[in-house]
Amino acid sequence: MTAKAIQDYYPDEFAHCYGCGPKNQEGHQIKSFPDGDEAVCHYTPDPKYSGGFPGNIYGGMIASLLDCHSAAAAAYFKHREEGLDLETTPPHRFVTASLKVDFLKPAPSETVFELRAHAAEIKGRKIIVHSTLSANGEVKAKGEAVMVQIPENR
Amino acid sequence: MTAKAIQDYYPDEFAHCYGCGPKNQEGHQIKSFPDGDEAVCHYTPDPKYSGGFPGNIYGGMIASLLDCHSAAAAAYFKHREEGLDLETTPPHRFVTASLKVDFLKPAPSETVFELRAHAAEIKGRKIIVHSTLSANGEVKAKGEAVMVQIPENR
Repeated sequence: MTAKAIQDYYPDEFAHCYGCGPKNQEGHQIKSFPDGDEAVCHYTPDPKYSGGFPGNIYGGMIASLLDCHSAAAAAYFKHREEGLDLETTPPHRFVTASLKVDFLKPAPSETVFELRAHAAEIKGRKIIVHSTLSANGEVKAKGEAVMVQIPENR
Repeated sequence: MTAKAIQDYYPDEFAHCYGCGPKNQEGHQIKSFPDGDEAVCHYTPDPKYSGGFPGNIYGGMIASLLDCHSAAAAAYFKHREEGLDLETTPPHRFVTASLKVDFLKPAPSETVFELRAHAAEIKGRKIIVHSTLSANGEVKAKGEAVMVQIPENR
């Protein structure tokens, strides 16, 4: 792991996301880190993000975490494939074309979530990212995201 | 449309969701209404729920809105199929087994979103809900959710 998270390398104009933007003071500010051929994130959600039943986190937040983590992971995977270093070359920016979440079990609040992601496929500007959200060592949700690289001139 | 939203009929112990729970004072408290064979919701998101670029809403929130609206829609569709009235019989409770979101275009903040949902399939305890999120008359995202009815004794 590096000291700086992948999101900390986002250019300022792209850093306002409620889920993962370092510039969004009110947001979750999740931090994803390179970990070999995976990206990993640890995050403890505030209980206010309750699901229908208190003590669990609402589905939308699970989707948010998997989405933002997968976007950061895609930026890292692309850099890694191109042999680039985040320290010297800013990450490419990715947007989510689609996200599928399988909600396997309730995800308890006030627990440290571990998010992991890996690239199932890298094809040109498109990366398919598979991800998991775990709590207490058990996978609670799985994600499959299609991430698309934004052209540099936009 | 009825005066009360579908979510307003949720039993108290199921009404804490950050996305749609009437009991969650800090949450979005979205309100979904029956509209023939559809359910409809109008919602204006706070700009703090920004995407990477300010002026748009982050993907996680789009997923949240489609998810919560689809859950309410499923409760309504099941009632409708069974010929029940929300005024006299509390809605069945549904949880999301899976959610797929296609992000078609950026969704602008400080705009009234219109969410619509219909039942693509009702089969026993499972309802497949198709949904859209529109702004300024244009569909910005599409959802497909598999909703599963919780047994009454749980």
